[in-house]
Amino acid sequence: MTQLIDVPAGLKGVVVTATSIGDVRGEEGFYHYRQYNASTLARTRTFEEVWYLIQAGKLPGPAELAEFTARTANCRALPERVADALPAIAGLASADRPLQALRAAYELVVLDQAMAPWLDISADTLAGQAIATGAVFPTLVAALYRLARGEQPIAPRQDLGYAANYLYMLDAVVPSSERVRALEAYLISTIDHGFNASTFTSRVVASTGADLGSAVIAALGALSGPLHGGAPSRVLDMLDAIGAPDRADAWIRDTLGAGEVVMGFGHPVYRTDDPRNVMLHQLAAELHSPRLRLAEAVETRALKVFRELKPGAPVHANVEFYASLVLDAVGLPRELFTPTFAVSRVVGWTAHIAEQAAHNKIIRPSARYVGPAPEAAAAELDTLVRG
Amino acid sequence: MTQLIDVPAGLKGVVVTATSIGDVRGEEGFYHYRQYNASTLARTRTFEEVWYLIQAGKLPGPAELAEFTARTANCRALPERVADALPAIAGLASADRPLQALRAAYELVVLDQAMAPWLDISADTLAGQAIATGAVFPTLVAALYRLARGEQPIAPRQDLGYAANYLYMLDAVVPSSERVRALEAYLISTIDHGFNASTFTSRVVASTGADLGSAVIAALGALSGPLHGGAPSRVLDMLDAIGAPDRADAWIRDTLGAGEVVMGFGHPVYRTDDPRNVMLHQLAAELHSPRLRLAEAVETRALKVFRELKPGAPVHANVEFYASLVLDAVGLPRELFTPTFAVSRVVGWTAHIAEQAAHNKIIRPSARYVGPAPEAAAAELDTLVRG
Repeated sequence: MTQLIDVPAGLKGVVVTATSIGDVRGEEGFYHYRQYNASTLARTRTFEEVWYLIQAGKLPGPAELAEFTARTANCRALPERVADALPAIAGLASADRPLQALRAAYELVVLDQAMAPWLDISADTLAGQAIATGAVFPTLVAALYRLARGEQPIAPRQDLGYAANYLYMLDAVVPSSERVRALEAYLISTIDHGFNASTFTSRVVASTGADLGSAVIAALGALSGPLHGGAPSRVLDMLDAIGAPDRADAWIRDTLGAGEVVMGFGHPVYRTDDPRNVMLHQLAAELHSPRLRLAEAVETRALKVFRELKPGAPVHANVEFYASLVLDAVGLPRELFTPTFAVSRVVGWTAHIAEQAAHNKIIRPSARYVGPAPEAAAAELDTLVRG
Repeated sequence: MTQLIDVPAGLKGVVVTATSIGDVRGEEGFYHYRQYNASTLARTRTFEEVWYLIQAGKLPGPAELAEFTARTANCRALPERVADALPAIAGLASADRPLQALRAAYELVVLDQAMAPWLDISADTLAGQAIATGAVFPTLVAALYRLARGEQPIAPRQDLGYAANYLYMLDAVVPSSERVRALEAYLISTIDHGFNASTFTSRVVASTGADLGSAVIAALGALSGPLHGGAPSRVLDMLDAIGAPDRADAWIRDTLGAGEVVMGFGHPVYRTDDPRNVMLHQLAAELHSPRLRLAEAVETRALKVFRELKPGAPVHANVEFYASLVLDAVGLPRELFTPTFAVSRVVGWTAHIAEQAAHNKIIRPSARYVGPAPEAAAAELDTLVRG
């Protein structure tokens, strides 16, 4: 028999593979893309620079950046056949399942390209698919958003950056540089984050030699899970429900007392402040978020109550908490919060798919059978079938 | 830091979870569903009986079987909105990417139902979604097949069994019981098979609390990978290329000499005859497959050449080898071989999703960062951002 190897539940701590894309140091409250501090990148670089870094493994020089930026901008428009079929998807989609709609829309792109298994194509072609996929995600999200409201999609503009063009496609207004920079910082800060369930999913699917689209679609499904992608919009809903700083304490105690969850707290890896949240808190302040005072009060009170109730288990606000304020202050409607997360994370997924392809070993674990003992072994077959 | 745990590449042998759905005993050439020999089930039971067994954990009594069969048959028809949108999918789909088309079509079902995360619904509702999904897969495959040929889909018939109705929807001819039984045996024998990449993918996605549809869609992507789902149709193409038994030896030596793969041999788990293949070989003989002599000659010669070239590594024909003859003799066109595999395996996936939901722990492994050391730790952030 194959030797079975027992490991912690949920594969916690189990090394699936080596990676040079990035890492999360949970004890230090630090994460990095390649060799660069991700929070620093988020505040000092454009989305395209970091996309290039994640994909190519180094920061681009000026000429490389110009070429890469132009190449991504050139991939933003929807193929005509996809644009034609998109209203059918939008017509079926439910407003409270935005990742389902995005995924179904992206399926059209995969079909249109008849995307081939990476096993059958070159690394360059795979890299081109990664760029095309990342470039078209904001277009799909914006088009679905407008179609759902009975409006015509707005064509992308090649002269705007990734974040600016995304905002532009929502309402045809060229956004202020303040909004663009804030959204860009959010997007950069959420490109990659260790072997979370969606990133891992993308690598499992890629390990079969499947096409990039299949791996991205699978990752979107994992991201839609309430235990993974979550929903920053729920934090805003919660803040609305609390209403005022002086109601925070009672609301939190009532919620926890009823066995319900206070949104935006806790993370499986960080044992300190989530560094993304530290950065997003700063941003929310710079954007003069109207909910900042309330959010800070809720954070302070919640941490105090958590400490009282679970003295040994430090809980901190996670990336969802201040991300909700930033996305709101940038002007994104709540139903776009989760798709916007996908718009950045897709860049991480495609880098992981390429890395898996470059050093592939199919991911095929085992399980321990714990049901009733099987009735008979192989020898029984002949008797039963022939008898 | 989180303790990292090194395990064999590809998680080989690593116990992800406990399962009572089934197991594969690679050394014995034996696999089972629940406590029953799967090959025996394939030759002695209807698809609906085994579906019930996989889902409910026990074989149905007569009343249970009648009710279950009626319930599944009742879920075969496409919702009108899905049927209306299906031609758009068929129009975009490429003939050589059949799983992409099936997946995009199933997305329409997921959208139509606005399928909710299992975390938010009851186990009964989840079981209903599993039945609806398994029941509609053959309808989608048959409809896409006909639309691609410019023909109108044929509505399912509730009075036929799962396998018979599938064949009926392809050409509106009620199939002979010999064809039905052969297809049924193939379908039953491929419902489940350990923690292969697609089954594992379905469980990773389910572990996030996502909806059943997201997990099934992700699994379809993994199944489309050349290293996993393969393509029984390639075995037929190979047999056609060889042409006659006396050309087998030279063809195999030439192919291996050119560093190419001989289709239908080898398996990551079995160290003996693949029991599915033993059963399918018998079936191909009973069906008087016109390619049987040729296939047997190729198998014999290939095993001899493999033994010569790799004396220490026993290679056997795998499930693809005789499955190709059976599916062909049943009258399925080659482009439907892989979708037909999905039609049975989806029943396995949905059982694994339900089992994951019943004993959930999010699957979130780790990786070892091997890139350049990061430039600075968390403390650097403030300096750079504020500086």
